Amino acid sequence: MLNFSFENQTRIHFGEGQISTVASEIPAGAKVLVIYGGGSIKNNGVYDQVVNALKDHAWFEFSGIEPNPNYDTLMKAQALIKQHDIDYLLAVGGGSVVDGSKFIAAAALYNGDDPWDIITDQQKVEAALPIGVVLTLPATGSETNIGSVVTRDGHKLPFMSPAVRPQFAVLDPAVTLSLSDRQISNGVVDAFIHIMEQYLTFDVKGKVQDRFAEGLLQTLIEEGPKALLAESKNDLEVRANIMWSATMALNGLIGAGVPQDWSTHMIGHELTGTYGIDHARTLAIVLPAVMKVRRDAKRTKLLQYAQRVWHIKEGSEDQQIDQAIKMTEAFFQTMGMPIRLPDVELTASDIDTLMAKLESHGMVALGEKQEVTLPVSRQILEQAL
Amino acid sequence: MLNFSFENQTRIHFGEGQISTVASEIPAGAKVLVIYGGGSIKNNGVYDQVVNALKDHAWFEFSGIEPNPNYDTLMKAQALIKQHDIDYLLAVGGGSVVDGSKFIAAAALYNGDDPWDIITDQQKVEAALPIGVVLTLPATGSETNIGSVVTRDGHKLPFMSPAVRPQFAVLDPAVTLSLSDRQISNGVVDAFIHIMEQYLTFDVKGKVQDRFAEGLLQTLIEEGPKALLAESKNDLEVRANIMWSATMALNGLIGAGVPQDWSTHMIGHELTGTYGIDHARTLAIVLPAVMKVRRDAKRTKLLQYAQRVWHIKEGSEDQQIDQAIKMTEAFFQTMGMPIRLPDVELTASDIDTLMAKLESHGMVALGEKQEVTLPVSRQILEQAL
Repeated sequence: MLNFSFENQTRIHFGEGQISTVASEIPAGAKVLVIYGGGSIKNNGVYDQVVNALKDHAWFEFSGIEPNPNYDTLMKAQALIKQHDIDYLLAVGGGSVVDGSKFIAAAALYNGDDPWDIITDQQKVEAALPIGVVLTLPATGSETNIGSVVTRDGHKLPFMSPAVRPQFAVLDPAVTLSLSDRQISNGVVDAFIHIMEQYLTFDVKGKVQDRFAEGLLQTLIEEGPKALLAESKNDLEVRANIMWSATMALNGLIGAGVPQDWSTHMIGHELTGTYGIDHARTLAIVLPAVMKVRRDAKRTKLLQYAQRVWHIKEGSEDQQIDQAIKMTEAFFQTMGMPIRLPDVELTASDIDTLMAKLESHGMVALGEKQEVTLPVSRQILEQAL
Repeated sequence: MLNFSFENQTRIHFGEGQISTVASEIPAGAKVLVIYGGGSIKNNGVYDQVVNALKDHAWFEFSGIEPNPNYDTLMKAQALIKQHDIDYLLAVGGGSVVDGSKFIAAAALYNGDDPWDIITDQQKVEAALPIGVVLTLPATGSETNIGSVVTRDGHKLPFMSPAVRPQFAVLDPAVTLSLSDRQISNGVVDAFIHIMEQYLTFDVKGKVQDRFAEGLLQTLIEEGPKALLAESKNDLEVRANIMWSATMALNGLIGAGVPQDWSTHMIGHELTGTYGIDHARTLAIVLPAVMKVRRDAKRTKLLQYAQRVWHIKEGSEDQQIDQAIKMTEAFFQTMGMPIRLPDVELTASDIDTLMAKLESHGMVALGEKQEVTLPVSRQILEQAL
């Protein structure tokens, strides 16, 4: 096991009806900005529950955060924050709304000239407005972690700061019942691949981390498809297990003390930034190719993944690994995902564009051992054809 | 899954050499009281590492915390705290030192007449001195949780308060290499049974919690015996996995959203309080009896435990459960534990004494459904003969 430091202070309120805890979580005197996306929360009752919880607070609202939250949109919130002396943000939505709120929170207290420097120059964020979250889409884990991804002019780029970790997060699985199949699929596969990025590296005898990761993967494999089937899609227990898995997938715990990869994400980001493809769908295309191209470096863990997650016991080691990759692809397809570039109408001729993006973003040594150089990334994209 | 709220703010620094982080974790101006036990930390280098980390701090020390920390001992620290205006406690030791420090921290800021009321009247602890921990014995999980158990006149009683949750905990597996076999055995079995108290109840479809619990149980079953074998007892990876398992076993995570039992602990506490038997050894005696007496109420989870933790696939359901109980007892014996009352020289004639203690402590409706009434506790003790 590698040395590590771990902390996660976010208070979690999990279960049906827990949106009411917002009332006591946000300090009485706070001036709150409620931040949300396209308005779906007005149709599924979440907005009304939030309004009810805030009935004794002074609050304002800012809507229109899009998927892959855009810098220009986020900067529009700053005027509202100054105008009303906002001192608490309540993000009501999925990962994009939470990520966007984190950037808004950091930009509001940023001392430099241009908040975009937070991302391009990775300027240290020393302070940010406090954030609470009412999560509506389990997927990114952003509700309890320190990361955020913001998009500007086709560049999708991350920043991290402990200052933007939410103070609290409400996880009510009942609010996920109104999600579309595509949203729930994206969430399940996004969470699955977050786990894989922290698990499928090389063995450092992190037995607890491995088993927690395997437990989450198995839970998503069992519960994900049920959330799409007519007979089980309204089962609150299915939604609860998906929601808790997605939070645990990226709250820092399973990645503490083990190597991490993240090459699938970095390559996937270019597919979203360039072509606007849903984040999870890019990951479902890239991960199988990473498993194939990086097979030797990841051999020990691939075999463990085959045996413990997919319960494959027959055949040679290589056959077991082949079978595990096939079952991973089949799982993604069951979840309605593309698994090759042509599935999203991309061809070999698009690879040069993606490579140029990777290079311009400095993504020249990715992966758990920085071995995913540009030529290896090209191999991965070619494998995905 | 049951509704739940979860939080755990303790910062963790895990790995060899991490004791040095104490220097930056404790505020520069703090006046620190270093609290420890019988002095083993002076022989294994831990004391020297702590002294070195505190070289720029004002600090004092209080030693002599015994196993099952005694109220009278703990109250002696209060004079020292007043004399030196202590405002930070650093607990250096195992669960007893940490639990004792929690009581010292709460008593120092207690506004009532008698700090013992914190325990006997379960008076709410509103404030406590901040606590840091350098853990030397992985077992109780006290280093990141809100619980503490204190003993007075043969009464071993718990209290809980968020105010006594440690600010930070250093987990350096290298410091556990100097533990005796008995200490490491006690730690592994204590942690194992903490997990069982949160796992072996009834099924609420908490799939993540179940799999996390099963992962921790399997890790302790694999690694515990290695820590006793000559060829592997100095393996730092073994110690690291045991240490992280013990912390995760009782940091609130695997128990969030699922029923909990704790009858084994409550009955075991009377064995320690009355006869001074090591905590873990009392649990190893009581748990198998609880599994047998409460077999029907716990049937679903017993079967899941048999199949997932012990990989038992053959035989009828009842045979699988029998086999799992036998394997649990064999594991405890491998760890050098007693598994019956006669193993610690107790007989049927001691049961009345224990029953009177349980009754006097109000332990009249224990377990996940409060079904462990006094007659059921008697059955459990008789089963343990």
